[in-house]
Amino acid sequence: MANQNIMNYATVTLDDDRNALLILDQTKLPGQVEMISLYSQKDIWEAIYLLKVRGAPAIGVAAAMGIYLAAKAIQADIYEDFYGQFVKAKKYLASARPTAVNLFWALDRMENVVLENQGKSVDAVKKLLHNEAIAIEKEDIWVCKMIGEHGLLLVKDGDGILTHCNAGQLAATKYGTALAPIHLGRERGYAFKVFTDETRPLLQGARLSAFELAADGVDTTVICDSMASQVMKNGWVQAIFVGCDRVAANGDSCNKIGTSGVAILAKYYGVPFYVCAPTSTIDMGIERGEDIPIEERPAHEITEMWYKQRMAPEGVNVYNPAFDYADNELITAIVTEYGIARQPYTDSLKEIFQRKAQAVKS
Amino acid sequence: MANQNIMNYATVTLDDDRNALLILDQTKLPGQVEMISLYSQKDIWEAIYLLKVRGAPAIGVAAAMGIYLAAKAIQADIYEDFYGQFVKAKKYLASARPTAVNLFWALDRMENVVLENQGKSVDAVKKLLHNEAIAIEKEDIWVCKMIGEHGLLLVKDGDGILTHCNAGQLAATKYGTALAPIHLGRERGYAFKVFTDETRPLLQGARLSAFELAADGVDTTVICDSMASQVMKNGWVQAIFVGCDRVAANGDSCNKIGTSGVAILAKYYGVPFYVCAPTSTIDMGIERGEDIPIEERPAHEITEMWYKQRMAPEGVNVYNPAFDYADNELITAIVTEYGIARQPYTDSLKEIFQRKAQAVKS
Repeated sequence: MANQNIMNYATVTLDDDRNALLILDQTKLPGQVEMISLYSQKDIWEAIYLLKVRGAPAIGVAAAMGIYLAAKAIQADIYEDFYGQFVKAKKYLASARPTAVNLFWALDRMENVVLENQGKSVDAVKKLLHNEAIAIEKEDIWVCKMIGEHGLLLVKDGDGILTHCNAGQLAATKYGTALAPIHLGRERGYAFKVFTDETRPLLQGARLSAFELAADGVDTTVICDSMASQVMKNGWVQAIFVGCDRVAANGDSCNKIGTSGVAILAKYYGVPFYVCAPTSTIDMGIERGEDIPIEERPAHEITEMWYKQRMAPEGVNVYNPAFDYADNELITAIVTEYGIARQPYTDSLKEIFQRKAQAVKS
Repeated sequence: MANQNIMNYATVTLDDDRNALLILDQTKLPGQVEMISLYSQKDIWEAIYLLKVRGAPAIGVAAAMGIYLAAKAIQADIYEDFYGQFVKAKKYLASARPTAVNLFWALDRMENVVLENQGKSVDAVKKLLHNEAIAIEKEDIWVCKMIGEHGLLLVKDGDGILTHCNAGQLAATKYGTALAPIHLGRERGYAFKVFTDETRPLLQGARLSAFELAADGVDTTVICDSMASQVMKNGWVQAIFVGCDRVAANGDSCNKIGTSGVAILAKYYGVPFYVCAPTSTIDMGIERGEDIPIEERPAHEITEMWYKQRMAPEGVNVYNPAFDYADNELITAIVTEYGIARQPYTDSLKEIFQRKAQAVKS
């Protein structure tokens, strides 16, 4: 399967016949490509906890499908009994990754379906939960595809594209965000040359982005993070696409550690730097990047996690921030499912949300 | 020994009594601190080939001492016999690392001693070779110390300093180049806070710089290369010191891959960026950085060398340039043993060489 196109395999799928959640086990990549079936809530909880499924959109979809499977298995005739057990199951799944916003968002949305249909039969509510889980999946695919459509307008066939970390299909249901223009372009016969920063310390670029791009038949080159400058100096990069974890109202974009550095290099070499952001990640309540808290992670990720032996002396300090943010002045455009925002972002991001509000109304 | 100050242990030493070359085995760092004694020419050749001793200055000193030991062991009464065997030994050592300029430079300098003293007895030539090897060692220490003296003028007690790769004592006999201001400052009671980029793919920053700085009691923090931007954004860095492999006449400075990126970040954040360069690495015959050829190294260094398992999918491309160069416009100053050069480097580097010529004359 390693040489087959993973674009044919959704990262997360609901198997209605077998009452299972199918996921592509990301902890085994790139060595083994394995779809695993999760039957119990414990299996689903562990898959999220152990990062077998990862990436904000993918976690949201997995949680929605997971809580639906929990609901389906509830043996209750009376709504109140059903709801009590549903809330218990929801609480359990929510504890898998306490900082994953999309996990709560998806579970809350599923709970709302239950709350809004109090008068209906338990079977009817179960059916509505099924529909909602599928709707969340479809919306995710639509959002990613639209980001791909808009992003594709920013590049041309044959371009060199650099990306950092993995904001690809593996982090979503299909297409991904930063890699959506590349996968969608590939469907349409574009031949991009893609450079993936390996993305220390967790190597999502080398392990995951390189895997899904190569599997999709994209010309893919892995580099160390420190080589991005040389690749741009060589003139090999015409555009940079990165994902994001949170965008502030002024356009400052928080993403995997190293993103700010790539943005600064892009400015220096005159390469356009694009942030691919579903509107769900744009937080108009946060004024600017420095208000976004930066999570620090354990030292062993840098000094020993992947290595045969410890790679730094004992007792030395280690600083391991998980994220940084690119200043809005470095960002050429922010690509959303409702179009492309440009400077000044304080205005253009508002316009994006107006467009979204109109689309939802109509 | 791991917690003892390695500044007390020269990276390379001649043990006259035992006819041995003593080196600190760098392939074992940071896990084991082991001084090994090399008796045979084969041992010395292998130590250079296998990077047990590495860094341009250290290789030069090791080669000079190595060829002296070879000469000392030659059993010949007649100069011609001696010279024939000397040339054979020289050729053998020179083959250990065919691209290491300092290896040839040191061996040629030793051969010149033989050639210039053709009338003397074999014993007298051997004694002169001993003196020359020690002179090369002493010069290396002097050059590094003077770079430290000049570099120390550019920082103040308590400063945060960032460095990339290892241009430290481990790459030379004592002090090193980029780390000379830090070690010398430490001798004088300065308390710097040093950040070492881990320096992918070969991790010289995490393995070697962090080791020698921590052993010297310096407050040392290891970061991934991609975190340098965040560390500067935090305001933690007041100066950057890097070594160099070759400086062009216009000041463009070629060094370990990633150096150009650090220089661009430094410019963006307004942090001074200093290149520490013995005059032996300044090549006035090369006009600018783009004329310096960039060595590409094997893919496995990135994808599997240190890892428990392969970290990128099979069949994907890998680009692994060993060096890049920082544009002269990004360099605040070039620190040499004969003083500090600033923009425009085409003039200031000439002045440095004039100062050197006068010093050698007097």
